[in-house]
Amino acid sequence: MEPSLMMRVSARGNRFPDSPIRKLAPLADAAIARGIHVHSLNIGQPDVPTPRPFLDALHTYDRTVIAYGRSEGEPAYRLALAGYYRAAGIELDESDLVVTIGGSEAILFALQIVAEPGDEVLCFEPFYTNYNTFAMMSGVTLRPLRTEAASGFHLPDDPAILAAITPRTKAILICSPNNPTGTVLKESELRRLAKMARDLGLFIISDEVYREFVYEGTHTSILHIEGLDDHAILVDSISKRYSACGARIGCLATRNKEVRAAAVRMAQGRLCPPVVEQAAAMAMTKLGPGIFGPMRDEYLRRRDITFEGLQRIPGLVCEKPSGAFYIMAELPIPDCEAFARWLLTDFSHDGETLMVAPGPGFYAQEEAPETPKGLNQVRLAYVLEIPKLKRAMDLLARAVDQYPA
Amino acid sequence: MEPSLMMRVSARGNRFPDSPIRKLAPLADAAIARGIHVHSLNIGQPDVPTPRPFLDALHTYDRTVIAYGRSEGEPAYRLALAGYYRAAGIELDESDLVVTIGGSEAILFALQIVAEPGDEVLCFEPFYTNYNTFAMMSGVTLRPLRTEAASGFHLPDDPAILAAITPRTKAILICSPNNPTGTVLKESELRRLAKMARDLGLFIISDEVYREFVYEGTHTSILHIEGLDDHAILVDSISKRYSACGARIGCLATRNKEVRAAAVRMAQGRLCPPVVEQAAAMAMTKLGPGIFGPMRDEYLRRRDITFEGLQRIPGLVCEKPSGAFYIMAELPIPDCEAFARWLLTDFSHDGETLMVAPGPGFYAQEEAPETPKGLNQVRLAYVLEIPKLKRAMDLLARAVDQYPA
Repeated sequence: MEPSLMMRVSARGNRFPDSPIRKLAPLADAAIARGIHVHSLNIGQPDVPTPRPFLDALHTYDRTVIAYGRSEGEPAYRLALAGYYRAAGIELDESDLVVTIGGSEAILFALQIVAEPGDEVLCFEPFYTNYNTFAMMSGVTLRPLRTEAASGFHLPDDPAILAAITPRTKAILICSPNNPTGTVLKESELRRLAKMARDLGLFIISDEVYREFVYEGTHTSILHIEGLDDHAILVDSISKRYSACGARIGCLATRNKEVRAAAVRMAQGRLCPPVVEQAAAMAMTKLGPGIFGPMRDEYLRRRDITFEGLQRIPGLVCEKPSGAFYIMAELPIPDCEAFARWLLTDFSHDGETLMVAPGPGFYAQEEAPETPKGLNQVRLAYVLEIPKLKRAMDLLARAVDQYPA
Repeated sequence: MEPSLMMRVSARGNRFPDSPIRKLAPLADAAIARGIHVHSLNIGQPDVPTPRPFLDALHTYDRTVIAYGRSEGEPAYRLALAGYYRAAGIELDESDLVVTIGGSEAILFALQIVAEPGDEVLCFEPFYTNYNTFAMMSGVTLRPLRTEAASGFHLPDDPAILAAITPRTKAILICSPNNPTGTVLKESELRRLAKMARDLGLFIISDEVYREFVYEGTHTSILHIEGLDDHAILVDSISKRYSACGARIGCLATRNKEVRAAAVRMAQGRLCPPVVEQAAAMAMTKLGPGIFGPMRDEYLRRRDITFEGLQRIPGLVCEKPSGAFYIMAELPIPDCEAFARWLLTDFSHDGETLMVAPGPGFYAQEEAPETPKGLNQVRLAYVLEIPKLKRAMDLLARAVDQYPA
């Protein structure tokens, strides 16, 4: 036997999904090489500059040895972070916080802590695509329950949720404001889930990395809901709120001491989060919540421009989302994977096109599905300046019109 | 039923081990509070300054948005890293490299890629304690085979290794230069493992994060061994070689394209490694291998001082290690966990004591063992300046002498 034939990647190694957000990149590169300008609405990378105090803290970092930090995060930064939450009406002690390597790691830790391999975690489709990867790494089954564009991707009713909970369900995983839909869960929705969590003994893992991006009313955190101290695990990140996605600083916050202790033990395995960026993030927390206002205003305008643009497309279905910087829209096109490729390979107008993220990547993976879920949907990230966004919406309308059905 | 009673952390969440290196920290804090100077030989945190070009690159980082980088690492940095390996006689294409968040993440990725949950990975005890955590996160069973202080912790003979390989064994995990023993595997030892890997269709995961710390001869990498392209997975990190442990930049290198592709898909799940530190690490790779000479000379002197100090302790067993900055010694003390605590709680000489890492943390975990493995061993990290090291060895000799047996 050829040795090379024997060296197979594990089955799980092969199951890890290609990023649905990034897999069109080669086609975009080819379009750019042909001289086409590509408006990138496919990826949630804000174009707003990282705030000056963050960069200043990097530039003046004064330690001479970049030594290991504390596994649970630097004490001074955790203290500052507790202050950030206090300003948002969330009382946390610094010992409730574990600094993680992005929100990503907080999700991985949370899944491993609440569930044994083979256990289930209920989540709502469409959902952040990388939950699939972390569930697979943890041997946890994500059990998805669909939400619909026509109802603004809000939660199903209680009987539908209860019907999806099995004896192996250990947690409910939510994301609000939501990636990919932009939906902000209402306090009443959180209270419905909280009651189920208490009644059935479930954890709630709440991904709130877009917490500062809410355009109507205020954000309700899972940690605002009383009586959930043992149940609630908050996943958070500075990536979006400080436009520092490449810094990889997140956190896991919980008042459940056993969960926190388990997270610290997992954190010890990977030693520490990046220490320089913790100093930079700390500089930001000192500025208080006032810094988010102008950014929120800008994204509110962008959301409105995007939503208005979409309304002009015949047959398109979407409700106006209240948060994050995404809109998930149903197009009058049965196969948006093919449409997204066609935008990059065949379509252009005055030398420009756009890049979108096709819907199926935001649904649970199925083995050889007849029709992938979400195939008539795309996710748009409104992370461009307003004139570019207007142009992108114009391009999208033209493309939908011209697309050979 | 009280809701709080129902909210249990998963069994694996409770099994994650407390860091054996860090768990004595509260006792050390208490000793310091009593005015005792504690020489820390317990943790592999080099005291050498992070090189100026690394810090300069941080201080002059000129992007205005710290955006997401590429999941597999920045192209320019991967190219530079391939150059680093070329200078070490290892031919790699930049497409063979995946930049990881420390060596830690490379180990996690490698374990998940080679093994299904329930599969086994052979490793040699004593081993780097955090392998336990990553194996647990991956559902992989580490099957340990003991090596002995008296034979310098070199590999057992072939029949012993072959006897430990089962139908579920998917890989052999090695670390050379070794943490915790300082042992550098000989080329002949690597060739023995390579033959077994080829004959039996096993991967070899080779942790070489101490590759620049070899004091006799040159380092043989797993990627130097011909005919292993499909089998070899290198785990590496800049933490030690650039004294930048807190930067969290590592890499996984393999010529097996399927392994590399799986690693990239896993990497996409967590988006990217820290981008600022990649720029800093790139600045270092431009300096060439000459920068390691002075550092290596300094550690060689430290090793000799430490080893000489140990030789003066009656009943102590250890061979002179050839690499890394650790020595694992067998003491004439049956319970070195108790001894390590006693050093911090009861012992001092002229207001000074030392902190060591007890042996058992570097062995596979067992449920309620009668006598933990490695209980008569300690790991010493020679990461202090020579006068302090000399004093620490003097303190250790006094402590062993005074310890109430």
